[in-house]
Amino acid sequence: METAVQRASSKPSTGYGIIDCDVHQHLNSYEELKPYMPRVWWDRLKEYNGTFPSLVWRSIPLTRRDASPEEGKIPGSDPEFAKKHFLDKHNISKAILTGSLLTLSTHPNPDYAAAIATAFNDYTFDKWISSDDRWRASIVVATQDPLLAAKEIDRLGSHPKACQVVVTPSSSQPYGQRWFYPIFEACVRNNLPIALHSGGEGEGINTPPISAVGQPTTNLERHNILPIHQMSQLNSIVCEGVFERFPTLKVVCVEGGLAWLPHLMWRMDKNYIAMRKEVPWLKRKPSEYIIDHYRFTTQPIEEPENFDEMIQMLKFMKAEKTVLFASDYPHWDFDDPKFVLHKLPEEMRRRVAYENAAELYQLNDIHS
Amino acid sequence: METAVQRASSKPSTGYGIIDCDVHQHLNSYEELKPYMPRVWWDRLKEYNGTFPSLVWRSIPLTRRDASPEEGKIPGSDPEFAKKHFLDKHNISKAILTGSLLTLSTHPNPDYAAAIATAFNDYTFDKWISSDDRWRASIVVATQDPLLAAKEIDRLGSHPKACQVVVTPSSSQPYGQRWFYPIFEACVRNNLPIALHSGGEGEGINTPPISAVGQPTTNLERHNILPIHQMSQLNSIVCEGVFERFPTLKVVCVEGGLAWLPHLMWRMDKNYIAMRKEVPWLKRKPSEYIIDHYRFTTQPIEEPENFDEMIQMLKFMKAEKTVLFASDYPHWDFDDPKFVLHKLPEEMRRRVAYENAAELYQLNDIHS
Repeated sequence: METAVQRASSKPSTGYGIIDCDVHQHLNSYEELKPYMPRVWWDRLKEYNGTFPSLVWRSIPLTRRDASPEEGKIPGSDPEFAKKHFLDKHNISKAILTGSLLTLSTHPNPDYAAAIATAFNDYTFDKWISSDDRWRASIVVATQDPLLAAKEIDRLGSHPKACQVVVTPSSSQPYGQRWFYPIFEACVRNNLPIALHSGGEGEGINTPPISAVGQPTTNLERHNILPIHQMSQLNSIVCEGVFERFPTLKVVCVEGGLAWLPHLMWRMDKNYIAMRKEVPWLKRKPSEYIIDHYRFTTQPIEEPENFDEMIQMLKFMKAEKTVLFASDYPHWDFDDPKFVLHKLPEEMRRRVAYENAAELYQLNDIHS
Repeated sequence: METAVQRASSKPSTGYGIIDCDVHQHLNSYEELKPYMPRVWWDRLKEYNGTFPSLVWRSIPLTRRDASPEEGKIPGSDPEFAKKHFLDKHNISKAILTGSLLTLSTHPNPDYAAAIATAFNDYTFDKWISSDDRWRASIVVATQDPLLAAKEIDRLGSHPKACQVVVTPSSSQPYGQRWFYPIFEACVRNNLPIALHSGGEGEGINTPPISAVGQPTTNLERHNILPIHQMSQLNSIVCEGVFERFPTLKVVCVEGGLAWLPHLMWRMDKNYIAMRKEVPWLKRKPSEYIIDHYRFTTQPIEEPENFDEMIQMLKFMKAEKTVLFASDYPHWDFDDPKFVLHKLPEEMRRRVAYENAAELYQLNDIHS
């Protein structure tokens, strides 16, 4: 395990660390979870492609070929390779592992989904977290049964390397509604933010289709419209008063885009003036809850022809407070930290590269 | 009927006319349609609240009380009153009537829905269009049966006061998909743009819920998230190559918000680079189709605390070409032209107030 001094030497030339808030560990096969699961589920694990809905829209590979540790192995399946190929190469100080169970919460069986979540978390701590001090874990939970999810959060929440809970933003009932509160309660009880990582939309038991007007035709069309699930969850969470009920809760929108936020904040604030009598529990404007409680990861950052327009957009959404860097390694649309961070104005860059994440995840040691 | 010279005298002090692209005519009761409908449907007309899904989220009145022509009458139900109370007062040169059948296409019976559309169109030409040269009609069609809709467009499309076709953006299958093409074909054949006017989302037979993650709780939450249906239709229409198949087609997003467009254009263009092999029919970047073929009405315009941010957003979406003024008279969230237009920079204001709409709807006589 490296020391803080050794860590300091791997800082990039910018003079501060980078916290990467979205890095994926992948199983070579679900059978890797066998040692962490009761025997009753073993038969299902063999059915790699059968156990969870697979994305029928997929038209390009999910992962970077060069992230494969060796011929025939899944990219992102080997912590040692990922350390050299990713952490060292890009001078990453801390990397938040977000898992690879994007369709977990779309499975019809709540017990099987919960057992997979538990096994995957144990696999993560066992194989990844123990291998390097730079890794941090997200606790993966299945949303089918919020009480089982809360139990899993309580089981692992006090681990010093657990830094957040992660769920999909795909659901049949918005997360601001009461059935979901046991999960928020457990997050608050364990002092953990909750991340909504895009994935699983419109599949399995999560009935609303990917697009708001029915299923799209192509993966291009699907990927373009994914942020509407993040928008819908944010809207529900804020309007239902979740941040009044859980004043210490933080929510992270991961891989859900950024540039839609100004529009939604402005619309919510305007409508709040006319319809606030419906939501007497709100004490502030919707945008104030968002700026204080919501965080957004950069990847895949929008890229207008003139990137200055994106800088403007980041200012509209107070990126110096709300935005966290993420690369999405080892996925196909990986954002190189050099590319993204070096395009930001200096003051915003430091906040996005590490300060916002260090504050959110209490990773203050990397400042030294 | 007024002459062009008389019309000129009613121009506002800005020195140019205003074309209002979203004004609603309302029935006092569905029974007003009796004279225009076969007797077989008359029984249904009595059931005013029963014939079409009513918005269970509604928490505030739909219309401005002061727009009621007299005690007990529905606001927007009397063309003579609306002329004085709205057209004259706000110096409107032309007003595009968009109807009030927002849930028409959510009805389970395609023949009844089509009969209502036909009757409503006849009512509009009979009672409204004939009453003043400033009114223009949208041809209302029901989407349940695209072939019946096309027939209705052909029946009325050559009327000199018909200026577009109007449908809801709410659907169970995205409009870029093939089943909808008879409607686009009829629009092109009759040289009419098609307007997607927000309304009817998540109701009746249109199964995707209003929010992308399930039904919202309050009207505030519902109204905040309505634009995702417009985003989804735009995404489908562009990605499916509708503008390559119908190169003269124009689409108008009415009452669907504006400030989300830069985000979606940027995301679509970025994804197109990676996934263009899925859509070989596209010959240009998605944003180029949008800027050339799509138009967006202003109301309800987003209002950040600092309106300069909205001006920036309008520049990102090339408002000088793509944005049309709309007031939404006589609805509750009416935007006063003075308020909206006077906040825009002069060059953009003239384009938004009348030039963009005059070009789109070929209303060139109002320039004089």
